[in-house]
Amino acid sequence: MLEKVDLTQALRKAEWKPVREDLEVKLGQAQRVAREAGLRTVLVFEGWDAAGKGGVISALAAAWDPRGFKVHNLGLPTAEERLYPSLTRYWRRLPASGTIAILNRSWYRRVLDERVDGLVDESEWQRTYDEIDSFERQLVTDGYLLLKFWLHIDKQEQKRRFKALSEDPVYAWKVGKAERRRRRQWSEYEQAVEEMLARTSTGLAPWEIVASNCRRHARATVMQTVLSAMSRASARGDEPAAAPAPTAEEEPSTVWVKPSNPLDRVDLSLSVDRDTYGRQLDGLQQDLRRLQHQLYRERIPLVIVYEGWDASGKGGSIRRLTRELDPRGYEVVPIGAPTPQELSHHYLRRFWIQLPKAGHIGIFDRSWYGRVLVERVEGFASETEWRRAYQEINEFEASLVRFGTALVKFWLHISPEEQLRRFEAREADPFRRWKITPDDWRNRDKWDAYYDAVGEMIQRTSTSYAPWTVIEGDDKPWARVKALRTVKTALEGVLG
Amino acid sequence: MLEKVDLTQALRKAEWKPVREDLEVKLGQAQRVAREAGLRTVLVFEGWDAAGKGGVISALAAAWDPRGFKVHNLGLPTAEERLYPSLTRYWRRLPASGTIAILNRSWYRRVLDERVDGLVDESEWQRTYDEIDSFERQLVTDGYLLLKFWLHIDKQEQKRRFKALSEDPVYAWKVGKAERRRRRQWSEYEQAVEEMLARTSTGLAPWEIVASNCRRHARATVMQTVLSAMSRASARGDEPAAAPAPTAEEEPSTVWVKPSNPLDRVDLSLSVDRDTYGRQLDGLQQDLRRLQHQLYRERIPLVIVYEGWDASGKGGSIRRLTRELDPRGYEVVPIGAPTPQELSHHYLRRFWIQLPKAGHIGIFDRSWYGRVLVERVEGFASETEWRRAYQEINEFEASLVRFGTALVKFWLHISPEEQLRRFEAREADPFRRWKITPDDWRNRDKWDAYYDAVGEMIQRTSTSYAPWTVIEGDDKPWARVKALRTVKTALEGVLG
Repeated sequence: MLEKVDLTQALRKAEWKPVREDLEVKLGQAQRVAREAGLRTVLVFEGWDAAGKGGVISALAAAWDPRGFKVHNLGLPTAEERLYPSLTRYWRRLPASGTIAILNRSWYRRVLDERVDGLVDESEWQRTYDEIDSFERQLVTDGYLLLKFWLHIDKQEQKRRFKALSEDPVYAWKVGKAERRRRRQWSEYEQAVEEMLARTSTGLAPWEIVASNCRRHARATVMQTVLSAMSRASARGDEPAAAPAPTAEEEPSTVWVKPSNPLDRVDLSLSVDRDTYGRQLDGLQQDLRRLQHQLYRERIPLVIVYEGWDASGKGGSIRRLTRELDPRGYEVVPIGAPTPQELSHHYLRRFWIQLPKAGHIGIFDRSWYGRVLVERVEGFASETEWRRAYQEINEFEASLVRFGTALVKFWLHISPEEQLRRFEAREADPFRRWKITPDDWRNRDKWDAYYDAVGEMIQRTSTSYAPWTVIEGDDKPWARVKALRTVKTALEGVLG
Repeated sequence: MLEKVDLTQALRKAEWKPVREDLEVKLGQAQRVAREAGLRTVLVFEGWDAAGKGGVISALAAAWDPRGFKVHNLGLPTAEERLYPSLTRYWRRLPASGTIAILNRSWYRRVLDERVDGLVDESEWQRTYDEIDSFERQLVTDGYLLLKFWLHIDKQEQKRRFKALSEDPVYAWKVGKAERRRRRQWSEYEQAVEEMLARTSTGLAPWEIVASNCRRHARATVMQTVLSAMSRASARGDEPAAAPAPTAEEEPSTVWVKPSNPLDRVDLSLSVDRDTYGRQLDGLQQDLRRLQHQLYRERIPLVIVYEGWDASGKGGSIRRLTRELDPRGYEVVPIGAPTPQELSHHYLRRFWIQLPKAGHIGIFDRSWYGRVLVERVEGFASETEWRRAYQEINEFEASLVRFGTALVKFWLHISPEEQLRRFEAREADPFRRWKITPDDWRNRDKWDAYYDAVGEMIQRTSTSYAPWTVIEGDDKPWARVKALRTVKTALEGVLG
């Protein structure tokens, strides 16, 4: 999930000032409403060293009446705290009715450290995550508002901040042995964090990953998220939170910073010339045929998910992919609107029962992601349902991967201008006119809503075990070659 | 949980006939209502070999229109099924709207077999249980009615049934190598089943353990449970089930068999003579003092829970227990009605923060079990809340035990007659009159409701890691000696 975060997001000083003033006033109001409503709020802040947890917490504190919140610094447990079960220190710090507990570090810290340092084996940390799951479920089902923030910076930014801190005699102590050691273990931590985010982003308590290379942007993002979640939770009363995150389209009047969207950074100018394309395509198709046989011999199932805008070239890409494959070993599964029979089942069932068998390839032309795309945008699924779906989908894919499935997920991305060109070209062509329907034009009108939904989908379902590949699709040859190469690389990965 | 099941429960042939007829008619009606409501019902049957799964399923089938249900026999996965992720075969068999899937064996079978046979390590089967948790949560939150039955018989009864089957040429095949092997591994299976029941009895999908030594009793219990759960679920519509089990007091008109209550079998005539009592008490108190020091040296925390009827002798027992203990190392925590401050928190918090530290002893005079006793009976907690509490409490105690805590839980049991004698004696004694309040008389009037609540509590929270000890309390000396001896044995267990 971390690699999908856009760390270039920033807020200029001049932009920040009015945003901060406005957010502070509204957060102050939200605190008063929450106190009236008896809401118990728990805000968890985790993140890389020097990611700016202190600054974010200060920004919240500045907005609030200090009688109504308490900041808890949860470093390593004290000698005294070690005499109690590990969750005791967190239970102790839970907020009473109408108040807010701000946790600087939390129950996640120790499990990360212990994992990276190899102090606990897998069954031990799996159990710890189970305990955390139970703990968070108990809180949220009892009506607590629980928000978990991961403040994300990159290694480069951390280096700059460590340097600045070290050179300042007042702050130099902040970069000690432990911090430097964690920095040296960056990639081990990154892996552990990725797994933690996937494992503990439940429907009831998902993580919010905050792009924090720009401190102002991080503060605005956190303040906005807290404000929106508290307002919603106070209005809801005692009902357990389905999920706290706000979405852009729901509160158009109160969006100060746009949520990070991985699509913003896609370079649609990428292209490949005809000759190179032809040569590469041939080579890749031959490679894939060979790999398909190996897959079959080793009884490894391969699932390829194609999602993308209308007219983004899914069909053409699939044709190139399957061109040289042995047709006895693959199946293309087109996913349209569910039949009444399918609707009477759990939405995931039709995918579970159409999985390829071991050694075979299943190519899904659209997929289970419909739940968080079309069903979300068109209102076919309730907000509770599609928010829950991120976890359900991550769990589904974890089951596949655990079984040994190789899983590749494509989002074929094109610009709205390119889409328009393709729509018009289709309408002008009597042989391809059937491919364009009023539905396509209607979907196009909702480009922005889909854009947000796709961004959140990629962010929340790009796990270490099932990452998304966004394909730059304005140039069809580029897109096709990239898709085939991605499949090839994934296969070489599982075939070792 | 299994040891608390009363396997002597039985239904005579003459009793069974009218019960069956009535249940069949009502189940038929319930099926029609469920079809109208579009309810999707999944009934899972697991249990010991020869526990009577077939007979129970036949009894249900006899009541129902065969077009509305399907029986799935889920033995070991076929060679074909092994080519898909292990949950696929269950997703395939999920019922459509308005229909019922009856699963003879399920996703639990394989994990039990593999565990007992040592084919998978702990982290592997923990992951499998996580997958099962996810799967069941996905179904129940989507509105499926999911009931899981464990048909329980004892080893003796299985022996009888194996013998009868083996001697009948028609059925002899039913007792094969696998069945005999499992029988030889009875105690390993028992342990694995106990853990499975505790681990997967979630608030959304708890297990129902069915006393099945008497086949008629097992059928009646299952039919009644299914009927009640289906009726409730159809009425509720699409809302996810909080928990399906019926309770006696809710549907007084439709109770054919009383649920198994561990209190039924308590022998209240047990007593000890004065001399023996004095001698044993002295010895035990000396032992406990010695063990307390050892506990302290090894930094092991001990938690003792006292629950029991009013006037059952909790206070007297606690005084004898602590008599020779070093007062610096133990604390008695009296639990009364929560303060307004405590009410503003999660109900478990006040127990979490009053746990004894490592090496110390915490004696809770009443406890977190108030949630499923007084709060249930008096309506202070909603049904959803107290049903959810069984899982929350099991998770809480699992955390304690995982930390290394020794945990002893007492239910002090007396007869209503003995309670009356003690109440009257207290009222007649000017020095003890304060001990008896109008509340005590009011609670006494609700004896039956408490009796059911205590029975369900003991059944659902007697885990392998935190079993209940029911103390026969009519004879105070007996009760005191037994309590002290239980604590001593538990301590010797953890001190090794």
